[in-house]
Amino acid sequence: MHQRLHALLAFTLALLSLNGAAQPADPADGEARQVILIIGDGMDEQQIAIARNYLHGATGNLVLDTLALRSSAQVLTTENALNGKPVYVADSANTATSMATGAITSRGRIGTAAGSDAPLASIAMLAKAAGLRTGIVTTASVTDATPAAFVAQINFRLCENPQRMVDVRYRDIPLGDCSQHLKARGGRGSISEQIAESPLDVVLGGGRQHFTPNAENSDQSVAALAREHGFRVVHSAAELASATPGERLLGLFAESTLPVRLQGENGRQAEEARPSLLNRLHRYLGSVSLPEPMSCEPNPSAADVPSLQTMTDTALKQLAADNTRGFFLMVESASIDKQSHERKPCGSIGELQQLDEALASALDFARAHPRTLILVTADHTQAAQLIPYESLFSAYPIPIYPPGKLARIITPEGSHMTVNYATTNFEIEEHTGAAVPLYSNAEGQGRVAAFVRQPDLFAIMRDYLGLQAQPEGTGVASEIDPAVQGAQPELGAAVGEDH
Amino acid sequence: MHQRLHALLAFTLALLSLNGAAQPADPADGEARQVILIIGDGMDEQQIAIARNYLHGATGNLVLDTLALRSSAQVLTTENALNGKPVYVADSANTATSMATGAITSRGRIGTAAGSDAPLASIAMLAKAAGLRTGIVTTASVTDATPAAFVAQINFRLCENPQRMVDVRYRDIPLGDCSQHLKARGGRGSISEQIAESPLDVVLGGGRQHFTPNAENSDQSVAALAREHGFRVVHSAAELASATPGERLLGLFAESTLPVRLQGENGRQAEEARPSLLNRLHRYLGSVSLPEPMSCEPNPSAADVPSLQTMTDTALKQLAADNTRGFFLMVESASIDKQSHERKPCGSIGELQQLDEALASALDFARAHPRTLILVTADHTQAAQLIPYESLFSAYPIPIYPPGKLARIITPEGSHMTVNYATTNFEIEEHTGAAVPLYSNAEGQGRVAAFVRQPDLFAIMRDYLGLQAQPEGTGVASEIDPAVQGAQPELGAAVGEDH
Repeated sequence: MHQRLHALLAFTLALLSLNGAAQPADPADGEARQVILIIGDGMDEQQIAIARNYLHGATGNLVLDTLALRSSAQVLTTENALNGKPVYVADSANTATSMATGAITSRGRIGTAAGSDAPLASIAMLAKAAGLRTGIVTTASVTDATPAAFVAQINFRLCENPQRMVDVRYRDIPLGDCSQHLKARGGRGSISEQIAESPLDVVLGGGRQHFTPNAENSDQSVAALAREHGFRVVHSAAELASATPGERLLGLFAESTLPVRLQGENGRQAEEARPSLLNRLHRYLGSVSLPEPMSCEPNPSAADVPSLQTMTDTALKQLAADNTRGFFLMVESASIDKQSHERKPCGSIGELQQLDEALASALDFARAHPRTLILVTADHTQAAQLIPYESLFSAYPIPIYPPGKLARIITPEGSHMTVNYATTNFEIEEHTGAAVPLYSNAEGQGRVAAFVRQPDLFAIMRDYLGLQAQPEGTGVASEIDPAVQGAQPELGAAVGEDH
Repeated sequence: MHQRLHALLAFTLALLSLNGAAQPADPADGEARQVILIIGDGMDEQQIAIARNYLHGATGNLVLDTLALRSSAQVLTTENALNGKPVYVADSANTATSMATGAITSRGRIGTAAGSDAPLASIAMLAKAAGLRTGIVTTASVTDATPAAFVAQINFRLCENPQRMVDVRYRDIPLGDCSQHLKARGGRGSISEQIAESPLDVVLGGGRQHFTPNAENSDQSVAALAREHGFRVVHSAAELASATPGERLLGLFAESTLPVRLQGENGRQAEEARPSLLNRLHRYLGSVSLPEPMSCEPNPSAADVPSLQTMTDTALKQLAADNTRGFFLMVESASIDKQSHERKPCGSIGELQQLDEALASALDFARAHPRTLILVTADHTQAAQLIPYESLFSAYPIPIYPPGKLARIITPEGSHMTVNYATTNFEIEEHTGAAVPLYSNAEGQGRVAAFVRQPDLFAIMRDYLGLQAQPEGTGVASEIDPAVQGAQPELGAAVGEDH
């Protein structure tokens, strides 16, 4: 059943990329419409406050703060089982799948259903099928979970290239396997291959390493496969700047994640408090050394790659050129999350700034093209917490300090900000499970409720673009269990009216 | 200068409580208007998600989730100095002062300005001066920081009764002093005395212990002082139920904070993970014991006191009876925060449920009285984090656990939820510094922007009620430095339009 589905879907997508068939009903006004979905990976309220304080001061404004509408989106995750129980903390794979497809799935999954592994059609696929252009921009590898969920369908996020499909390991530790999605078994192959063979118009980000290996059962690289499928592959900001409006672009500007904009002084990150020997004997005794306060500084490597704003500007230009049908664009600032995992608050701050700049570009575009719905959200919340620089209990004459790792940052307005990371003793901090911020521009009025579930974003975007739930006449719709996708009456957006 | 101000203000308030003078311009439509401000102390997105998951399941709805509008409110705090630098994490005293008065002040302060100690007129005082009724309902002591900021003016939140005005200590540790606010020095006295002498119509909560001591230089208790000033003082749910509509009520239902509704199984709270001996030698070795999963259970003591909803219902009845001028009511669920400080997730969940029920009552009231603006917000964010029950990195064969304290809760829908507390090694968790949620009912449309600063709430409520910035002709307005209160052009609400 799965193989038949995959084959059908692959065929359908190939067909659609050739002829732009299956025109759905246009939105009522007949004008071209655009959706720009901007995702700050891990961009929760703590991250936003930390960035605002550093970049603009406590009373300053991010561009985010000027958006017309604010909502909250409840993140939903399930066990990897049919009708599985809820899981309260998500990863970027299942959350991006929710936004891209409207389904609730399990951690690690890209565009596939929990339990059944059924493929789920994404908003980008539906848009393309309806003749709209589509683009994906990210500071991560373009094969990373968030961008992948908008184009690929596979059971495990780490299957990013043809060499990582079977028994994926890290230092002999088995992490997962995607054998059933091998082309040899009727699947669509690894994430990079699925991107190479996709009908997307613009794909910009990192992850060159995933396009270097040969495609499955092929003597050519995945990059060559992409070229064969009509992409121009570019590797530098200069090449990007020279793109011809309208041409299909695959930009790969780093081997993996793009370098971040800001870093801690001398590369410092959050560090442990060091209690004195006496304090180790009894917690009321002795003293504690907290990490020295530090500034953030530019990361020189960031100059080697285009900024998120530059990539966004290019994508908008490419997608809008001579386009009477509109487009869907996903823009991700990925390393707000990645730097938080690594306990690097300066890194997260700089990447939130990158998102804010990309948003400014999106808003500029929307001013010139009023039928543009801009949504800004996060996929899940993160570990970092802004805690007091001076404890609320500092009057008590005993050493007080957090048990995890902390960074004390000197802000440009001359105050001190302490960022705490304490979800785990592991090298990588965990995600957290709160609802995420959701912003929209004035086009969201009447379309985005004050409280939604994350999968509702799919329907909001689909309806705004006037797309149908599934490409008609493709045979796909009837194959996908409606319980898995689309038909989720119990998960509809809150009515937005008082209880 | 301070003494003169205090004397003037005390005189003014006494005057206003007698004659309801200084009528400001009514709102344009001339109808009576109400503001119900509901504060969930420490009620951030993490707390909301934790409570939603437990109370209604991951796909369930809190009453909160049904409100028409959602915003975010940036919390602002300053050093205790004139033109002091920003402080990035607040306490309940300065944040309640922001909401009540529109000013930015320093931690620990109640209705007074940082640096100068100047008194700040609260929304409740202005409402009373304009002939509106006013009420305060809380699950904390009515003298606790949040309720206090709506009625009292004093430099330190712990000066809750006449015996705690000079050299306030905890076990010989000096915590603060309010000598300059002694009546003998021209001040208004302790917080309980200021409440007893206030013109408020309804004051319900805990804190009986602060009304038992004799008033300053008096042989009668503060409770007696309150009676002398026209309050009926009640101590039980039965007495509360027998209140005559319209009479002024001071309800004190416990010695201090009211008992909470839910507690951990067998009184359990968050506990430390216990690594094995081998793991203490090397973090890649051995194993770790995490706290056993637990359920939440009812706290029997909660039956001894009226619920927040019952108190809210009574307050609404008292305030609305034969009232053509409208009212201001502040309702606080205080122990969302207090239980989080103590690492008791079940307690926080139950108190968020109490808030949600009080909100349901407020919404019922608003349906019958359409000119009712309901605002729901938090004062600051808190320590608790919802972290993965199964680590994102569980495939790695080493013991992974958080460095702080955690509780693993079995939810009624049959999943597991892990709550992490790790901001400090001290007995009491710290606050955190993110912007807080702000919800409003449909009356907030066009009045509450998507992003505001916390002090903006004062102006939103003042303008809705048609109050003037200061009672006119009282001599107070000209005494208060406009830089301290009201005139904060750089802190106006964001325009709510795209940047």
